[in-house]
Amino acid sequence: MQRFINNPDDLVDETVAGFVKAHRDLVHLDPANPRVVVSNAAPQPGRVGIVTGGGSGHEPAFIGYAGRNMVDAVAVGELFSSPTAKSFADAIRAADGGAGVAVLYGNYAGDNMNVKMAARMVAKDGIEVATVVANDDVCSAPAAERAKRRGVAGEIFMWKIGGAKAAQGAPLSEVQAAAQKAIDACRSVGVGLGPCTLPGVGHPNFQIEPGTMEVGIGHHGEPGTRVEALKTASEVADDMLRIVMEDHALPPGSEVAVLVSGLGATPVNELYVLYDRIEAGLTAKGMTVHKALVGNYFTSLEMVGATLTVMALDGELKALLDLETASPAL
Amino acid sequence: MQRFINNPDDLVDETVAGFVKAHRDLVHLDPANPRVVVSNAAPQPGRVGIVTGGGSGHEPAFIGYAGRNMVDAVAVGELFSSPTAKSFADAIRAADGGAGVAVLYGNYAGDNMNVKMAARMVAKDGIEVATVVANDDVCSAPAAERAKRRGVAGEIFMWKIGGAKAAQGAPLSEVQAAAQKAIDACRSVGVGLGPCTLPGVGHPNFQIEPGTMEVGIGHHGEPGTRVEALKTASEVADDMLRIVMEDHALPPGSEVAVLVSGLGATPVNELYVLYDRIEAGLTAKGMTVHKALVGNYFTSLEMVGATLTVMALDGELKALLDLETASPAL
Repeated sequence: MQRFINNPDDLVDETVAGFVKAHRDLVHLDPANPRVVVSNAAPQPGRVGIVTGGGSGHEPAFIGYAGRNMVDAVAVGELFSSPTAKSFADAIRAADGGAGVAVLYGNYAGDNMNVKMAARMVAKDGIEVATVVANDDVCSAPAAERAKRRGVAGEIFMWKIGGAKAAQGAPLSEVQAAAQKAIDACRSVGVGLGPCTLPGVGHPNFQIEPGTMEVGIGHHGEPGTRVEALKTASEVADDMLRIVMEDHALPPGSEVAVLVSGLGATPVNELYVLYDRIEAGLTAKGMTVHKALVGNYFTSLEMVGATLTVMALDGELKALLDLETASPAL
Repeated sequence: MQRFINNPDDLVDETVAGFVKAHRDLVHLDPANPRVVVSNAAPQPGRVGIVTGGGSGHEPAFIGYAGRNMVDAVAVGELFSSPTAKSFADAIRAADGGAGVAVLYGNYAGDNMNVKMAARMVAKDGIEVATVVANDDVCSAPAAERAKRRGVAGEIFMWKIGGAKAAQGAPLSEVQAAAQKAIDACRSVGVGLGPCTLPGVGHPNFQIEPGTMEVGIGHHGEPGTRVEALKTASEVADDMLRIVMEDHALPPGSEVAVLVSGLGATPVNELYVLYDRIEAGLTAKGMTVHKALVGNYFTSLEMVGATLTVMALDGELKALLDLETASPAL
């Protein structure tokens, strides 16, 4: 395993320690819980707090999105594992400015359970909690069962919109509604070209044979909808766009935001090759890209592959997306 | 080769095309030369222009540093190959605001030759050119022969400082002096854990055996000073810091800027593990980190590994480093 690691058991703590040192102008550790990263702008008195959290190994997600006008506090889990209920609860407490807290997270069993428990824990402190569960991964369940879909890179747009709405002073119900609207407007798909290895395990937890690719793969190597021969970048980009847009069914003239994220070990230039083709495909459909993000925004250790997220925009989402923000990753 | 590519011959053009689409708020292609990326803020009438350029495959370098108060125009080469003299000349023309142009680039034979030729070409247009050649890679030559050293990730600090000085309206000689001071204050080292493959070649152009690492490796796989057994992240971080600081010989109390860049396929969390240990080492030496950058800032396709750059700061460099900027990568 050609990796920069010490004891695998220390990897998450060391990651978080380095992260809060490198970005001390924006974030700090919760003094009460070393698995909670808090924005230096939090809590915002009288404003809704924004919390997220998830397993580690997806850096810069989730911790990189703590910051001003973004996420107020992030609960940090072990590699590819949900944060504890206590960490979610401590994150909620750290984000609480007295106007309630919106917890915006991804649809995974552990996270669902622990966020629910956390909400009960902080209810005793009088903190009102609203939740939005991201489920933007098209290939993880049919459209008719969207509630079963996993949350993936669309979460970044959900956090951005929720954080912006909270920054504008909206009440909890409106922040929740805006974040829900954001994730409802997102569709994502992942394509995997190479697996990843949890350092404590020491070998890949799934395989992708050379010469093949897995379409619809999840952020932890969850099986995709099909394994097929590796295609050209343009063909892959076309496939990704088709999968996302068939689920979206947007009218021509729509404005969208696009995120192409590497999964950790994909050369940055290839993400731009994909983006070039994706934007061309959107333009051909009569769509306009209002904002594009291309880079390693939501990774899976050293997985080779990429995700595409397309968010449909209206006037409100555009304005919230454009609101100035400052976080380590955005 | 598990990669997102079409015809390898088209990779650079497609990368640049996707890049200028994704970041059209900040950059555009030179209408006269598709291998020149120009900041939307360029040229700045009456101000010194900043140009850089280099081979592709290092994204977000070099194109990602075009932007406001940064680089005005970037000449784009083939993968791991210098841009042509014509592209450097066109970049100089695009950056020229009438007060001369500083070309801030890395010490490679092709770049040296082509920048010299470009300077002669634009002299006919009456454009004054000053150059600064980055040579921050400690392991590429002894300290007594610094002029032989390669330029690596320290170039990012050189561009930032030069761009800030130009933005303040300084004359060409002062912009050149500030950029020279910045790169003189930088020391870098790279450690490679896995090789990279030029898509047109189809196999790695060098090997790193599993269980080993190459200390002092260059951005194109240039051999390091030694191959040794792969150590723990802390040991690697200590080695990198020792190599850089022995060459630096800074007094306790010094303030520094630190850049830990992945080489393309290193998980982002491991870069923070390295940074955690590096900052601890600097603190133990009585140094203060004024600014830290951790991420994929200067890559080598899908090479596994990382670089460390430490820049010594004084009041002038700190102020220039802190000047607000907007580019796709910084």
